Amino acid sequence: MKILVIGASGTIGRAVVAELAPRHEIITAGRNSGDFRVDVTDLASVEQLFRDTGKVDAVIAAAGSLHFGPLAEFTPAQYALGLNDKLMGQVNLVLAGQHVLNDGGSFTLTSGIVSHDPIVYGSSASMVNSAVEGFVRGAAIELPRGLRINVVSPNVLIESLASYGPYFRGFEAVPAARVALAYSKSVEGAQTGQVYAVH
Amino acid sequence: MKILVIGASGTIGRAVVAELAPRHEIITAGRNSGDFRVDVTDLASVEQLFRDTGKVDAVIAAAGSLHFGPLAEFTPAQYALGLNDKLMGQVNLVLAGQHVLNDGGSFTLTSGIVSHDPIVYGSSASMVNSAVEGFVRGAAIELPRGLRINVVSPNVLIESLASYGPYFRGFEAVPAARVALAYSKSVEGAQTGQVYAVH
Repeated sequence: MKILVIGASGTIGRAVVAELAPRHEIITAGRNSGDFRVDVTDLASVEQLFRDTGKVDAVIAAAGSLHFGPLAEFTPAQYALGLNDKLMGQVNLVLAGQHVLNDGGSFTLTSGIVSHDPIVYGSSASMVNSAVEGFVRGAAIELPRGLRINVVSPNVLIESLASYGPYFRGFEAVPAARVALAYSKSVEGAQTGQVYAVH
Repeated sequence: MKILVIGASGTIGRAVVAELAPRHEIITAGRNSGDFRVDVTDLASVEQLFRDTGKVDAVIAAAGSLHFGPLAEFTPAQYALGLNDKLMGQVNLVLAGQHVLNDGGSFTLTSGIVSHDPIVYGSSASMVNSAVEGFVRGAAIELPRGLRINVVSPNVLIESLASYGPYFRGFEAVPAARVALAYSKSVEGAQTGQVYAVH
């Protein structure tokens, strides 16, 4: 398969590429790195990306940022950061990709454990990750031509504990290589509309 | 209790008022009707609303619109409608209200069955309703002074079948009066962070 990975330079992205590259052709795209440049928050940029890549069989989104902060001080603009970037960035890949992926192709998006297992400072993360999961459930039943869509919900990564550990005390951190298996299941399996929790 | 109901003129809002008015003081607010005017998509308008109402013990949000349409034709602007209105409109009530509700007060928001039981044309509804539920899980663990927050996820209403029935074939429609009980449980009970599914 020809697989487009967005965010391939991140911790999850690198593990996904390591898992899939031995069996597939991987092309990468990102804001500042990868084979192609894309701003996923801009649908026109995503449409241009697909013109640049040509036909692909799978799209994996392992990118997306959002704001962490205390609920007492959160602003609408801070929620908008995550809604525009992690949520709509991934949605834009589907809006554009649904028209150009090869028949039977797949989208695999990324949410996070905080969607259902909240942490302090994480009200935007719970909102945005839940929204991604809801979108996937909704989109799955409308995609044409055998296209599929799933979402991977990773726990905090062992590789990220140095930076995020204090926010995730008591969470059973998982290795990125284990998270990468869920992307493999989504791309190389046949299910759709699923949330693959790697918790 | 003094209970502020947003969207009291809607089908759910009227049922909620009928359920709670015999036992509580109800004040209402909406864009075009109610005791007070508010544009919930504008945080400043919500902050003004709470200055107008004075202290309240509970806020019930039974308002919020979003776009329905085919995934193949959906635009980012159409998703933004629901994110700005049904999602951030309800979030703004919490952002402003957390600082002014009486100790032990509660927020009760509204999502919908489509968050987990998708329908055709409903990718925004699945996204937005899931986002509301995620926000509630996240906010619940940060609210101060014993404040609580829950969300009611109603099935399609019997009262709405004339307009929405064709989109919800096979769903077991529920009466608004039954949905209103979930708001009562949220306001008059003691739980927090819950999704009350009335399915």
